[in-house]
Amino acid sequence: MADIKELVGCKELHGKIVSPAEAAKLIKPGMTVGTSGFTPSGYPKVVPQALADRAKAEGPVPITLWTGASVGKELDGALVEAGCVTRRFPYQTNEVIRKAINSGKVAYADLHLSHCAQNIRYGFFGKIDVAIIEALRITEDGGIVPTTSVGNSNAFVEMADKVIVEVNTAQPAELDGIHDIYSPKNPPNREAIPIEKVNARVGTTAIPCPPSKIVAVVASDVKDGQRALDPVDEISSKMASNLLDFLSVEVKAGRLPKQLLPLQSGVGNVANAVLVGLDEWPTDGLTVYTEVLQDAVFGLLDKGKVAFASSTALTPSPDGAAKYYPRMKEFRDRIVLRPQEISNNPEVIRRLGIIAMNTAVEVDIYGHVNSTMAGGTKMLNGIGGSGDFARNAYLTAFLCPSESGGGKISKVVPFCSHIDHTEHDVDIIVTEHGVADLRGLSPRERSIEIIKKCAHPDYREALTDYRTRAESAGGHEPHLLAEAFSFHVRLGTQGTMKQ
Amino acid sequence: MADIKELVGCKELHGKIVSPAEAAKLIKPGMTVGTSGFTPSGYPKVVPQALADRAKAEGPVPITLWTGASVGKELDGALVEAGCVTRRFPYQTNEVIRKAINSGKVAYADLHLSHCAQNIRYGFFGKIDVAIIEALRITEDGGIVPTTSVGNSNAFVEMADKVIVEVNTAQPAELDGIHDIYSPKNPPNREAIPIEKVNARVGTTAIPCPPSKIVAVVASDVKDGQRALDPVDEISSKMASNLLDFLSVEVKAGRLPKQLLPLQSGVGNVANAVLVGLDEWPTDGLTVYTEVLQDAVFGLLDKGKVAFASSTALTPSPDGAAKYYPRMKEFRDRIVLRPQEISNNPEVIRRLGIIAMNTAVEVDIYGHVNSTMAGGTKMLNGIGGSGDFARNAYLTAFLCPSESGGGKISKVVPFCSHIDHTEHDVDIIVTEHGVADLRGLSPRERSIEIIKKCAHPDYREALTDYRTRAESAGGHEPHLLAEAFSFHVRLGTQGTMKQ
Repeated sequence: MADIKELVGCKELHGKIVSPAEAAKLIKPGMTVGTSGFTPSGYPKVVPQALADRAKAEGPVPITLWTGASVGKELDGALVEAGCVTRRFPYQTNEVIRKAINSGKVAYADLHLSHCAQNIRYGFFGKIDVAIIEALRITEDGGIVPTTSVGNSNAFVEMADKVIVEVNTAQPAELDGIHDIYSPKNPPNREAIPIEKVNARVGTTAIPCPPSKIVAVVASDVKDGQRALDPVDEISSKMASNLLDFLSVEVKAGRLPKQLLPLQSGVGNVANAVLVGLDEWPTDGLTVYTEVLQDAVFGLLDKGKVAFASSTALTPSPDGAAKYYPRMKEFRDRIVLRPQEISNNPEVIRRLGIIAMNTAVEVDIYGHVNSTMAGGTKMLNGIGGSGDFARNAYLTAFLCPSESGGGKISKVVPFCSHIDHTEHDVDIIVTEHGVADLRGLSPRERSIEIIKKCAHPDYREALTDYRTRAESAGGHEPHLLAEAFSFHVRLGTQGTMKQ
Repeated sequence: MADIKELVGCKELHGKIVSPAEAAKLIKPGMTVGTSGFTPSGYPKVVPQALADRAKAEGPVPITLWTGASVGKELDGALVEAGCVTRRFPYQTNEVIRKAINSGKVAYADLHLSHCAQNIRYGFFGKIDVAIIEALRITEDGGIVPTTSVGNSNAFVEMADKVIVEVNTAQPAELDGIHDIYSPKNPPNREAIPIEKVNARVGTTAIPCPPSKIVAVVASDVKDGQRALDPVDEISSKMASNLLDFLSVEVKAGRLPKQLLPLQSGVGNVANAVLVGLDEWPTDGLTVYTEVLQDAVFGLLDKGKVAFASSTALTPSPDGAAKYYPRMKEFRDRIVLRPQEISNNPEVIRRLGIIAMNTAVEVDIYGHVNSTMAGGTKMLNGIGGSGDFARNAYLTAFLCPSESGGGKISKVVPFCSHIDHTEHDVDIIVTEHGVADLRGLSPRERSIEIIKKCAHPDYREALTDYRTRAESAGGHEPHLLAEAFSFHVRLGTQGTMKQ
């Protein structure tokens, strides 16, 4: 490990520099621990790993684990394997913890990412005993400079009894200054969040923290566990071009400016494909107001297609990190990283007029969206920020391929097996077959539009048969409840949704 | 009709004072008409009735009808009966139109009430041809002073080609000055809404309108079609006391101030019962930030229990109107009526930290809520503002009796037959049996809490049987999709949800 003293500006903390194992001893059974980290960037690595190692040797140290969003294998992997995580908030993407959640071993509550910090401050989840925050450095007055994400770190530091800082020398030092930390007060004293443009800076570059609260400082040089992106495939590319064609029509109709409005895009391959597609957008000077910046945004910033990007995390692939992190100096004046309660805040999202583009697990014929659960029961990742953006955006799009599982699963179903976003929150649905524009349509009209424009041709007949028979039975949003889940039940019993 | 010239301050409009029948002639087949009116107060009466009369005599004049929320029989009754309404936004409570919606005769889109005005300005629903606004008077420069509601009137006036004003001499003249009209700009130019306290005044007392846009002024003396409230019954009273006991515990725990935070309460008997219950709250100086003020709030204002109330409509019962409207001068400095895009705005709701209390049609064992549809298919009223408040509140409560239909319907079901509010948006559920506090619980834990605290004892065994068998099958939110709607199917086939 490097000598990190020169990165700890607050001299009184030099005596608190300890080993990961020493720091991990501060975490006791039954504690609630809040860590930095978002999708999965900027999370602490060496203290959680040390805790997992201790637990493996000496027996589990059960804790409630809070993060910003998904984190790496040291937390959701090693700690879960060591039996240390009994309760987990608010989002995850790791296979080890997912299995534990679905078997009921870990109690997981899937929360809107913008709701976390305020509900912790309100005291709704009890107190935070220890915060573990990854930092580039500590300032002279104890301020913690975050690394590749902000997430809920500001709220954890405010509310925790004790703070452990992991100073990570493997993170790009050029990120110093990129963060903008603003914490809203609790009602009745909360004020308007003074962000009226994507590039507004309204806070501090470090998370304020009284030095007395910092109980341990630990050196780390472990990199973020970045995830590779698949190359853009034909289906994703077709979805992206369908969406961008739609946006072009909106511009021509005067319903969107040429430079669009600030873009939000979910995590993963489909989201990345949409942003890659923007490379061909005829106007420069686009803006991004989102929760994660993937490779495509760096590419668009590099070309000047995107003028400014606001987010709570940098989430490049390993290739993207290798390409762009060494050049961070060139980008950092055009990127700001905010707390997730600000990047995902309804107030700011509605004010700026975001174009929200998120991926659906499945959609139903009336426009409800499942974002989280396979077969209505098995948690995949979580709702993340999709609800924050979908509800408050200027225009809300959900994207998914029309089928999956080699054609055995239709992504358009009669009734979503789980609903995260309701018909009230969805403007358009995009698949590789087309775009269903649901604005102003009644449910009966929506079902015709969605089946025609979005469903896979192999499933259109069965979906039309359902909707026609349901309509005969009447009602504003016609259903035959006895067979509303027939597609899913067939998949369970026959291995395919096809009749 | 009274001579309304003295109520029309803008002299150039005196020549445009015409009969309702003359004004109604300005409405042509195929037009989109936006009217004042909210739940059901302050809607135009004589022009719609004249249009309905003409249609009955000469044949239907099909129009798309936009309002603020529910309106009276002249619009959703007479106009629908005359075959004039082909499409309807965004909320209704009238039996005539409800029947037409459920039979598919009227295409109805059920929208979040805070979304309407901005989406009209964005051009998502085409243009507004004619606005019909009920007014107390017109100012010298054409400004329209609303009556008992604001609703979407400001947006309709801004976006309409032509404006018809109904000057209603039967409305309380003392309401003059009570309104606060503020219209947000469209992105990318929108600014922070400068409301940081319930009583903030940030706009004008009249809706600005160029006199040239006003094409007709009509006299009216028809009263709002107020709805009677049922006396508070035992079940409602028990729900209210369960909720208020819960709030007392939150105050003791330091999670709410003694004077609470601004209260929002839905429409109807249960909501009224909760507010009546606040009469016993130990602290004066409560505040209300909501969309409708029913009788109970006037009572609380009268006693000083409530210091200030903000809303978009006054919705007294006939008894309440008789009692309080003549005394409006005493109240008007402590009431403000805002556009519904402001009364229901996520930005303001989250900032002020509202306590949201709304009624559910049914809830499921995992905390999803149906607010709109009987049996998943038949529209009752609409989502109204429940989503605006539930998603953004400090604390979100949904209330319903544990059963209805003389015990044949359980309001707690395995899977909601329609979902308007998801598990991510619901903090507590209240029935006459108790309060389920869902904050921080996993779905499996929530189901135990909801069945134990909220379900009717007659249904607890069947619900527990479902959840136990579903849990054996596994998953984060265990379900047996083949029988998720078995309660509803049984009600359809056997006339009861009971086994």
